[in-house]
Order: sequence, then C-alpha cells, then structure tokens
Amino acid sequence: MSSTRERIVDASAELFRAQGYAATGVKQIVAAAEAPFGSLYHFFPGGKEQLGAEAIRVSGAIYEQLIPAVLDPAPDLVTGVRDFFEGAAEHLRETGYADACPIATVALETSSTSEQMRAACAEVFESWIAAGARRHVEAGLDERRARELTIAMLAALEGAFVLARALRSTEPLEIAGELAAGAVARALEAGPEQDRA
Amino acid sequence: MSSTRERIVDASAELFRAQGYAATGVKQIVAAAEAPFGSLYHFFPGGKEQLGAEAIRVSGAIYEQLIPAVLDPAPDLVTGVRDFFEGAAEHLRETGYADACPIATVALETSSTSEQMRAACAEVFESWIAAGARRHVEAGLDERRARELTIAMLAALEGAFVLARALRSTEPLEIAGELAAGAVARALEAGPEQDRA
Repeated sequence: MSSTRERIVDASAELFRAQGYAATGVKQIVAAAEAPFGSLYHFFPGGKEQLGAEAIRVSGAIYEQLIPAVLDPAPDLVTGVRDFFEGAAEHLRETGYADACPIATVALETSSTSEQMRAACAEVFESWIAAGARRHVEAGLDERRARELTIAMLAALEGAFVLARALRSTEPLEIAGELAAGAVARALEAGPEQDRA
Repeated sequence: MSSTRERIVDASAELFRAQGYAATGVKQIVAAAEAPFGSLYHFFPGGKEQLGAEAIRVSGAIYEQLIPAVLDPAPDLVTGVRDFFEGAAEHLRETGYADACPIATVALETSSTSEQMRAACAEVFESWIAAGARRHVEAGLDERRARELTIAMLAALEGAFVLARALRSTEPLEIAGELAAGAVARALEAGPEQDRA
C-alpha cells in the first residue's frame, strides 16, 4: 500500500524538478509511478494540489540531507560551502542541466496561485534556512548573522540555478559559490561581535 | 493590426510573470488580450511556443531598461545596486508578491523541455549580463571581473525573488541587496588590477 503511494510522490517530485508543476498532469504522474489512475485520488483525495504539497515537503526533507552530507566531511565551513556549490554544478552538468532545486520552479509557478503549494514551498525554504543557520552558529556566528548568511547563500544558489539551466553553463554556480564562500569567510573572520560591514 | 499583436504579446508576458508558462493557456491569453482566438495563430503560426519566446524577448528588453532607469540617477554604482534591490523589494510588496522577474519562472519550467523557450531566456539573461557588465567596466573594473560581478548580482536577485515570493517577505531581497552592494564596493576598492580575493 505504502509503496504505491511512495511511487506516486516520488514520480511527482521528479517531474516537478524537470518541468514544473503546471506542466505535470496527473495522468503523467500515475504513468511514471506505474500506479492505477484511481490510486492517486485514493491516497490524495485533494488531488494534484494535495499531492503536490506533499511531494514538495518530501523532496525538501531529502535535499536537506545534502547539508550534513556535504558539510560534515569538509575540513571547515568555507570549504564545505564551496564543495556544496561545486557538487551542485557537477550534478547539473551530469543531468544535462535538468536536475537542480526540487522547490524553486514550483515556488515561482504557484506562489501567487495556490496558497497550499506556496505554504509547502515556504516551509521547505524555512527548514533549509534553519538547518544552514545552525551550521553557522556552530561555527561561531550569532543567530541573526547566521540566518542572514544562510539566506544570502540560498539566494545565490537558487539564482545561479536559474541562470545555469537557461545558459547551459555552470559559470553562474562557480561565481555564486565564490561569492557565498567569501561571505562566510569574511563573517567568520569578523567574528560574532562584529556588526556587518 | 500591430495593436492586436502587441496586446497578445503583452498579455502573455503578464500571465507568464504571475503563473508561469505551462499554466497559461492560449485561450486565457486571447481573453486577456481581448483578441479573437484565430488572431493568435495568425500572428504566431508556431503557436504558444513562438509567442512565448517573443513575449520573453519583449519583456527582457523592457526590464533591461530598469538598469539605466535605476543606476543613472544614483550618485555611484554601489548606491545604484542597493537602490535596484530596494526598488525590486518595494515593487514585490506592492504587487502582493506576484510581480518579480519576467523570465525566471519560464526559464526553470522550459529549460529542459523547449529549446526554443530556453534559447529566448538565455538570450535575455546574456543581454542583461552584458548591460550590467558595461556599468562595472565604466566604473573601472576589467571585463572579466565586471561579468562575474554582474552574474553574482543577477543570481542573488533571482534567488532572492524565489525565496521572497514563497516566504511572502522582502527579507531575502534586503539581504541579497547588501551582499551585492558589498561585492561591488569591495571590487571597486580592489581596483581593476587586483585578482579576486
């Protein structure tokens, strides 16, 4: 039972990443999930919107695991941030510039048209920001600066994905990665007492 | 004649900004443009994709005019960059977080599914990057550094829009604006001969 449901959620998440929410029809989802059509409405009586919000939350939780997966093995936070952007660039190249952020496309498409979808995207972004900020606090920054730096990095990453996918180039990710790593390095040098420059 | 065509292009651009490409149907476009249904295929025999690519290019050229409109009155480039992000934040708030970048949603939706749309988005981004880089060269930076800084700023702006629209907050734009203005200020201080830190 749970396996059909999981396949439906996973297939939705994968289709959303590549082509967005609106272009993904429920027929395409059940076909990709190899699930009977009726099972979608059995598991998700609220239809595509309910399924969409769950797919966003599940993807968000999976991608959040990339933060420890990349940062834990790194010798320091600045190197970890640089590794994060490099890993994203490599994955983007390997997937033919298709597989970037599982949330951003859907967030832009639905933020003004579906409160349920917008709220799911916002929840994921806030969870990522909190997870990233904890890393900066552990490295010695105060809470406010840690949140600001994490939002700056996430913005640079998301914007670089937009440009990289359209331009079919990892140049924006390389530049954004340098910007983010430099911002972290300067913040750590300045220390927790310092006001931002 | 040209007026119906223009209304169709303008209506498409407006719908794409708010809800993206896939969610926007040709019937919705002709209704918003107050145009007869057949006129869309008369002016755009390639249908929605051809119209979409033109709407992206037209929007891109209009939004590019924001660069001189915001930067020319500013006393210096750093202030101009800060003003640009502040203006974007204000406009986003005023439009209920609906009206941000006319290209990004469509770029993420179509980059892996329509080469014609991806190419139009890439053309607009490259044009914006070139226009921004010229400003940095005029301010004294070398060509490579000017391009890098402009891409960093555009990435920060686009990513901040993604977060701001989902979170219904201008906080990401304020943070990204500080990051971008700081990067420009440091680059100008370092001067054209300096390698990046």
